[in-house]
Amino acid sequence: MDLNADLGEGFGRWELTDDHGLLKYITSANVACGFHAGDPSTMRRVCEEAVASGVRIGAQVSYRDLAGFGRREMDVPSEELAAEIAYQIGALRVFAQSAGSDVTYVKPHGALYHRVIRDPEQARAVVEGIKLAAGPRVVLCLTGGELDQLAQEEGMTTVGEGFADRAYGPDGWLVSRSEPHAVHHDPHVVVSQALSIAQHRTVVATNGRPVNVKARSLCLHGDSPGAVAMAASVRQALKDHDIDVEAFT
Amino acid sequence: MDLNADLGEGFGRWELTDDHGLLKYITSANVACGFHAGDPSTMRRVCEEAVASGVRIGAQVSYRDLAGFGRREMDVPSEELAAEIAYQIGALRVFAQSAGSDVTYVKPHGALYHRVIRDPEQARAVVEGIKLAAGPRVVLCLTGGELDQLAQEEGMTTVGEGFADRAYGPDGWLVSRSEPHAVHHDPHVVVSQALSIAQHRTVVATNGRPVNVKARSLCLHGDSPGAVAMAASVRQALKDHDIDVEAFT
Amino acid sequence: MDLNADLGEGFGRWELTDDHGLLKYITSANVACGFHAGDPSTMRRVCEEAVASGVRIGAQVSYRDLAGFGRREMDVPSEELAAEIAYQIGALRVFAQSAGSDVTYVKPHGALYHRVIRDPEQARAVVEGIKLAAGPRVVLCLTGGELDQLAQEEGMTTVGEGFADRAYGPDGWLVSRSEPHAVHHDPHVVVSQALSIAQHRTVVATNGRPVNVKARSLCLHGDSPGAVAMAASVRQALKDHDIDVEAFT
Amino acid sequence: MDLNADLGEGFGRWELTDDHGLLKYITSANVACGFHAGDPSTMRRVCEEAVASGVRIGAQVSYRDLAGFGRREMDVPSEELAAEIAYQIGALRVFAQSAGSDVTYVKPHGALYHRVIRDPEQARAVVEGIKLAAGPRVVLCLTGGELDQLAQEEGMTTVGEGFADRAYGPDGWLVSRSEPHAVHHDPHVVVSQALSIAQHRTVVATNGRPVNVKARSLCLHGDSPGAVAMAASVRQALKDHDIDVEAFT
Repeated sequence: MDLNADLGEGFGRWELTDDHGLLKYITSANVACGFHAGDPSTMRRVCEEAVASGVRIGAQVSYRDLAGFGRREMDVPSEELAAEIAYQIGALRVFAQSAGSDVTYVKPHGALYHRVIRDPEQARAVVEGIKLAAGPRVVLCLTGGELDQLAQEEGMTTVGEGFADRAYGPDGWLVSRSEPHAVHHDPHVVVSQALSIAQHRTVVATNGRPVNVKARSLCLHGDSPGAVAMAASVRQALKDHDIDVEAFT
Repeated sequence: MDLNADLGEGFGRWELTDDHGLLKYITSANVACGFHAGDPSTMRRVCEEAVASGVRIGAQVSYRDLAGFGRREMDVPSEELAAEIAYQIGALRVFAQSAGSDVTYVKPHGALYHRVIRDPEQARAVVEGIKLAAGPRVVLCLTGGELDQLAQEEGMTTVGEGFADRAYGPDGWLVSRSEPHAVHHDPHVVVSQALSIAQHRTVVATNGRPVNVKARSLCLHGDSPGAVAMAASVRQALKDHDIDVEAFT
Repeated sequence: MDLNADLGEGFGRWELTDDHGLLKYITSANVACGFHAGDPSTMRRVCEEAVASGVRIGAQVSYRDLAGFGRREMDVPSEELAAEIAYQIGALRVFAQSAGSDVTYVKPHGALYHRVIRDPEQARAVVEGIKLAAGPRVVLCLTGGELDQLAQEEGMTTVGEGFADRAYGPDGWLVSRSEPHAVHHDPHVVVSQALSIAQHRTVVATNGRPVNVKARSLCLHGDSPGAVAMAASVRQALKDHDIDVEAFT
Repeated sequence: MDLNADLGEGFGRWELTDDHGLLKYITSANVACGFHAGDPSTMRRVCEEAVASGVRIGAQVSYRDLAGFGRREMDVPSEELAAEIAYQIGALRVFAQSAGSDVTYVKPHGALYHRVIRDPEQARAVVEGIKLAAGPRVVLCLTGGELDQLAQEEGMTTVGEGFADRAYGPDGWLVSRSEPHAVHHDPHVVVSQALSIAQHRTVVATNGRPVNVKARSLCLHGDSPGAVAMAASVRQALKDHDIDVEAFT
């Protein structure tokens, strides 16, 4: 099982994620590329720390929306979106490479992440953007959505992602953040769900029944207080249950 | 003699430079990278057109200042500036490469262009940014300034640039735009100065005496009405005087 | 009949609308407030010229989206959108007042204009933003949409707007710009449709039958070549047919 | 003695200042207006909380520089800077007024704060911006600088500001942040310097001798950990020494 987290989500004077703390526990770093967060200096620093920690680097690509942190859906025309994705990958690549590694996967952020599950046009734009950048042919996303399917059709590898701290509906999709109880805050629940996904590829949905979660990577949220402690707990629990934690290949 | 011009200086809905028209006459395109102008779609389009026209692509790097078009000096700390330069080169590189070429030189834009003539700290940051991006080791700049010197000390190639439409002072430097008569508007004067630089590496300074202009490239301004016609006239005049127009190597 | 146009839609180095030319023919200026276009210096200049020309000033409010010129729908939460609308009105007000006038109406721009026709939540946010700014209680919008209705319920005055250069469908709504023939380019067609709206409050829809267009103001587009000539033609045609051209009151 | 602090210096997803905590101890809130920090929703919330806490509202105006938090000097032309200042005041005014108060003073932020001490051109632009906005005729700044003088010449009231946590040089000016020991971190030193300014209008400079500090307001920094506790300590110390803490009038 891989553990991924969003890193480098500050901007200029503002900090958000405890990049240093999280890098001790994760195996894949989704680095913000400047469109929803992330300035060049931060990108450079996070890439250098990730490489020093043996953590792989992925491009966390987003709509261009600093004011909304990439969390607002935007009707960006396909060609424009593809070029924006390529731009972000290219910019991050210089820092990943100068640190001695490379951008090894792409993960859409925020509203774009959810949009490309169901919108084939924007999903295709993400795939086109990766191709335009001659980017890594590995996409981290939810299994079963449009992006998952389109990326595979292009011969790319998709890595399914599960969430230890998010509630799942009976249909196997995430419960929307606008719903109550969409996010688990109790560390025991989070650790337990992480183990359930890692061991059985299932979680208990909101109706009390198990649903399948095809995941080779677990997403750990890094922008909340206690994020690092939670990451440490999940990693320890996986180790205690003899589950290998390593980057997907 | 090489002919260069700033291209792709629109942003979103706004257009500025007649990229298509200028590409017929220039040999080197300084493509805006998104910090003072230039959005990803425009960068892609300009790179594709440049390659189709046999024009080489350079990164026109700038301060982050869309509102001021990069024309306002900014006290950006060195490390931050270096990372910003690297970011821009990396972003442009994906479009240059996807078009079948590469970023082959770097030229600072606007206020940064002038600042690095005399500010060794920012000049060094530009050089560090190029190294960070494993960028092209060719810099287009004014001969004799700090950037020229520092880049050469790092083993980079510097290409001196001359201006056909700008007045030169007795000291051999450009007259500031804030002075009257800093810019030549008369096509005959511009063509004549272009020929003088190309044939004799001199121009007549504001005091009526010739000064040396070490230039292997002539900069043609693209953001004024009549820019394309002026570029055509200069190119034709060079041809009429048997001066080869080709990209620097 | 009132004639309105979007003005001040440049940003920094970039210009778009021929503000000076249009002010000779229109009676209401929708001034961009900095979110999709418009910088403070431009806002100031346009307000001063509008007052000198006897043209009333309205706030052209938008999503925060310079890169997309406000033309991309965004899922901005209501409270945030209301605050953004108020911010824009307040900023423009200083320039309208320093020029000796005031912001006398509000018109949503671009994607927001179309969204608030059918989205009651965002329409309500626009109304709340106007109230928050203690702004002008006059809204320029399409008759019959959500914003029109909600603004009236709040006791505001709504001014219906018609388009001389846009095709109308059999349902009386504008044909989407993504459809062919959505925009009329033939000056005779534009002038004819302007007259039809002004004299009969009808236009010939795409199916050849007349539909009602409840409009007290005609929108003239200012961001195309020939915009000023078109504005002059429409104004002249209205005069020739004894139709008073004056700002709505 | 007045106690002021910079509030509302988050942006979108990012928070910085503990606005709620600081409002218990200060008497004047310098509210960020969106150019270096501060989004419309935050501006609205801070104004409402300030009014509920009986704290007066001032406009903390800045260069347009979110990426640099307004801390980088910029060569903005005077007319442009004046319009930008007016824009910010106008935008904040809607939230101050909707909360039941008004913008009652102006304080430049960051690099602009320091630039207008010695640059008469930008100092004049700030004064012109305030006049353009028909803004409050009260300026919070360092005594003795260009802005202080120019504002007084225009008949404005200037309020001198002292710093409890910054070292002063023998010339009575602040030691630059780039110097070591420029900032006091020891609470005892900070409280002691606050008392010294409040009681004697002097501080002990870096050479061990007292210098005059003409201050009617003490600036408390709000963007560091422990900022609220420090504000509480300073306020308590002033109270213990029978020094009235109240907004300047």
